[in-house]
Amino acid sequence: MMKKVFSILLAIFLLLTVSCAIRQDEFRTPEPDMQETYDDFDAFFDKITALTHAITMFYWDMDTGGMPPGAIETRARVISVLDAELFEMKTSETMLTFFQYVEAAIERGEATDIQMGLYREFIREYNRLMCIPADEYKAFSELAVLAVAKWEEAKDKSDFSIFAPYLQQLVDYQRKFIIYRADAGMVYDTPYDALLDDYEPGMTVEILDAFFAEIRENVVPLLQSVTSGEGVIRDDFLTREVSEEIQLNVAKMLMETLGFDLNRGILAQSAHPFATSMGRNDVRITTHINPNDFFDSFFGVAHETGHAIYEQNISERLGFTPLETGSSMGIHESQSRFFENVIGRSLPFWEGIYDVFIRVTEGIFDDVSALELYAAVNIAKPSLIRIQADELTYPLHIMVRYEIEKMLFNDPDVKAEDLPEIWNAKMQEYLGVTPANDAEGILQDIHWAFGEFGYFPSYVIGSAFAAQILDVMENDFDVWASVRALDFETINGWLAERVHKHGAMLSPGEIYAQVAYEGFNPKYYVEYLTRKFGGMQ
Amino acid sequence: MMKKVFSILLAIFLLLTVSCAIRQDEFRTPEPDMQETYDDFDAFFDKITALTHAITMFYWDMDTGGMPPGAIETRARVISVLDAELFEMKTSETMLTFFQYVEAAIERGEATDIQMGLYREFIREYNRLMCIPADEYKAFSELAVLAVAKWEEAKDKSDFSIFAPYLQQLVDYQRKFIIYRADAGMVYDTPYDALLDDYEPGMTVEILDAFFAEIRENVVPLLQSVTSGEGVIRDDFLTREVSEEIQLNVAKMLMETLGFDLNRGILAQSAHPFATSMGRNDVRITTHINPNDFFDSFFGVAHETGHAIYEQNISERLGFTPLETGSSMGIHESQSRFFENVIGRSLPFWEGIYDVFIRVTEGIFDDVSALELYAAVNIAKPSLIRIQADELTYPLHIMVRYEIEKMLFNDPDVKAEDLPEIWNAKMQEYLGVTPANDAEGILQDIHWAFGEFGYFPSYVIGSAFAAQILDVMENDFDVWASVRALDFETINGWLAERVHKHGAMLSPGEIYAQVAYEGFNPKYYVEYLTRKFGGMQ
Repeated sequence: MMKKVFSILLAIFLLLTVSCAIRQDEFRTPEPDMQETYDDFDAFFDKITALTHAITMFYWDMDTGGMPPGAIETRARVISVLDAELFEMKTSETMLTFFQYVEAAIERGEATDIQMGLYREFIREYNRLMCIPADEYKAFSELAVLAVAKWEEAKDKSDFSIFAPYLQQLVDYQRKFIIYRADAGMVYDTPYDALLDDYEPGMTVEILDAFFAEIRENVVPLLQSVTSGEGVIRDDFLTREVSEEIQLNVAKMLMETLGFDLNRGILAQSAHPFATSMGRNDVRITTHINPNDFFDSFFGVAHETGHAIYEQNISERLGFTPLETGSSMGIHESQSRFFENVIGRSLPFWEGIYDVFIRVTEGIFDDVSALELYAAVNIAKPSLIRIQADELTYPLHIMVRYEIEKMLFNDPDVKAEDLPEIWNAKMQEYLGVTPANDAEGILQDIHWAFGEFGYFPSYVIGSAFAAQILDVMENDFDVWASVRALDFETINGWLAERVHKHGAMLSPGEIYAQVAYEGFNPKYYVEYLTRKFGGMQ
Repeated sequence: MMKKVFSILLAIFLLLTVSCAIRQDEFRTPEPDMQETYDDFDAFFDKITALTHAITMFYWDMDTGGMPPGAIETRARVISVLDAELFEMKTSETMLTFFQYVEAAIERGEATDIQMGLYREFIREYNRLMCIPADEYKAFSELAVLAVAKWEEAKDKSDFSIFAPYLQQLVDYQRKFIIYRADAGMVYDTPYDALLDDYEPGMTVEILDAFFAEIRENVVPLLQSVTSGEGVIRDDFLTREVSEEIQLNVAKMLMETLGFDLNRGILAQSAHPFATSMGRNDVRITTHINPNDFFDSFFGVAHETGHAIYEQNISERLGFTPLETGSSMGIHESQSRFFENVIGRSLPFWEGIYDVFIRVTEGIFDDVSALELYAAVNIAKPSLIRIQADELTYPLHIMVRYEIEKMLFNDPDVKAEDLPEIWNAKMQEYLGVTPANDAEGILQDIHWAFGEFGYFPSYVIGSAFAAQILDVMENDFDVWASVRALDFETINGWLAERVHKHGAMLSPGEIYAQVAYEGFNPKYYVEYLTRKFGGMQ
């Protein structure tokens, strides 16, 4: 995942900082003087980039074991100070001047693509930051800190009722914030649309309803047919012990094979794998090594390498600008899942990499064929925990969360306290399993405790878009011949041209158009899953 | 050493940034409005601290192998942007207001010790930054970048004449800058005094002339008498192979024994050992492991631990302020050398640590006694290279550089081109050795190529002050009984009270007074060296 690990303490500092930094009286119509040339803004955006890199650096140091334990409060403070400075810049007079400058340039037909990309990104953030009254945002932030603590307690005791009242209040705040947005002109079809748009600009309930209808109709019966053949696939070797040294050698081999440029990035270890970037020349991923769960690290590295290749292939033109990053959560996830699942869990890949794999694993898997490896890493079966789910069942986990989030925001009759019952019923309906308790059910994910709603769908939008990318790519060249030959130059060159090089200069919608002309279309994902898992019995 | 590793590329970016950021037209008499309370400055100094920590973090990452090689230009740029922002703050309207605020508070007798410390540090820096015309500083900075390249070439070819003209120009610039300082009211007894004061506030040619006269009179003959007994001390075990694992175990044992708090600091590896800090709760040191030079890492760790204990023991009152650092280069070096040499190379220490040492080194030194270890790590003999010099000959290396730097600035007849001859004559006179070429002579250190003069004496001021500290400490309690018992709580508590806890709130002069009442006095150093090495034959 492309993520940061948050501790409660950090959450406290960060949330307080953001809230303290918001000053409602600064919210006003822009009326600054026009600057003379665009160059005047270069130093301004350089500073935004530098502060963003610094925050990334501090998180990296913390997550990869550099920071001593006793420094946690100091670290929280330094991040909060830098964050407050960033907030101030993003809501500053200079930013308003920049908006006016670009608007004038657009009118004259002279705005560059980079200027328009910066404008789109920052005016979006500006509008979101400025429409909420400071005292209410502060109260919400403080509530979220408390909610995280309550969620932890509830999960420990497996008792949702401890968390429910806090969840309800977070939802109520977000509902109110959606009204403020509407008052400020940010109008959406339904309240939940406003939240989807936060994480995936342009994504709507209308699109996702159609998407999940397809999933419901096709994947639920497909899973039932797949699991009826359970037990015939050999899986004895999946838990064989593999030393840290060998796992790291495999990780590096895999990264290089897939096209990670080790001159412009590194691999480290952390409790949970993630990818992060300080520009295209400094892209970092981590893995977590468990001697008895080698394939977990293997596919984790494939996943993070997908994120990393995206960042490394962003055009040099966007170097050291705030656009030197991915277009959205969903687009980023499409790249990681393309490398992890579409490529990494394909038969041609295992045929292609088999000899190298056997050599680098030093005899541990000598008795296993490429086909057996392929089959074992694709075993699909219903499970309770999202982050452990396989490629086939994963969208069903997200569907449960999507439907519940939509209810919470679009159906005022649904209360937080009703959710465990709803959750368990949906798990049974879609996956055929029912959690024995709240801890392995509705309490498993932390996201809602942060007050974050609308984030989950991005994960599956990524999977779906990865399948769509494959379809379009197959029209252009023989993808599987390239994979079997471990020729990732062709594949990465194609992805760079259509997706990577544009960074955040293009919106997700523009990226969809670059790739597929027809825009995001979930049918390819259903076809992909049906083709792959339908043929597995 | 407490240092940062500079690459040429970084030097280019940093120097250009500083020079571009200086705008002569901003140099004016402070006339800002007075702010109402001191609290208004808290956020301002928080930001200075946060930016400083960020720069430290980026250097740490670079020096300890986190940064991928391809990221060097991006790294240089991010540091230069943060550095420019710091420069702007240090020369800002807000800073001027702060100066006025404290001046008024001092008049009213209401200024706090922290306010006065901040005032002293920042007005000093402000005056230095603002008195030099921007275009000249820029030219000097660009020259320094070129000079580093020329120094490297000259050292490679062992030909001082390649570097000489650049050195001469750097000296000429610095001479001119000293005149600008004088015009701005910063008047010194001699030109070289201005440069000494840069690194060691309050240090003068008068003090150092007296200091080095003592060294010349006492240490030169002492060395001759010591080396006449050469060859009788057993040293066969000094080059025994010690694995990386054991060296790191010894390092951690040593750090903990001396009082390094591993909850608030870490050990890492780098090409050259150094210590750095992001506040008292995040103090980091490195070591360089060479399997056949175990004692180099051992005493390197003792040295850096001395720096680290200083930083870790700064008072919490100064937490997250720009005063949460050492008082000066010389004071910092006194702490590192106290732990490395005064303690670490003493017989009571080796007697005290012997059993643990033998156990952690897993039998490698079983046939060596505590006394033999003590004697071997104190072997003194003349050598050509400063950074490899032993405790006794080290001050003689610094004396050569001090005398030459003083000539360059205070005696206009001395030209850069004359220096190799002067260097070699002084090496022969004081150490009894003559370099065979410029590379192992006058070209060995990079400092002058950066345009830095007046820095070298800080190293030996540290050694001398460490000896003075020992003398005062011995009046208070039985230091050697504590060392033999590995009781560092008493020693560190004493140091914390007199030196550490004050951080940069007190000037070096005030620290001398805290420790010794009589101020800095070199006689203790000469006595210490005479007692230790005079008894070694």
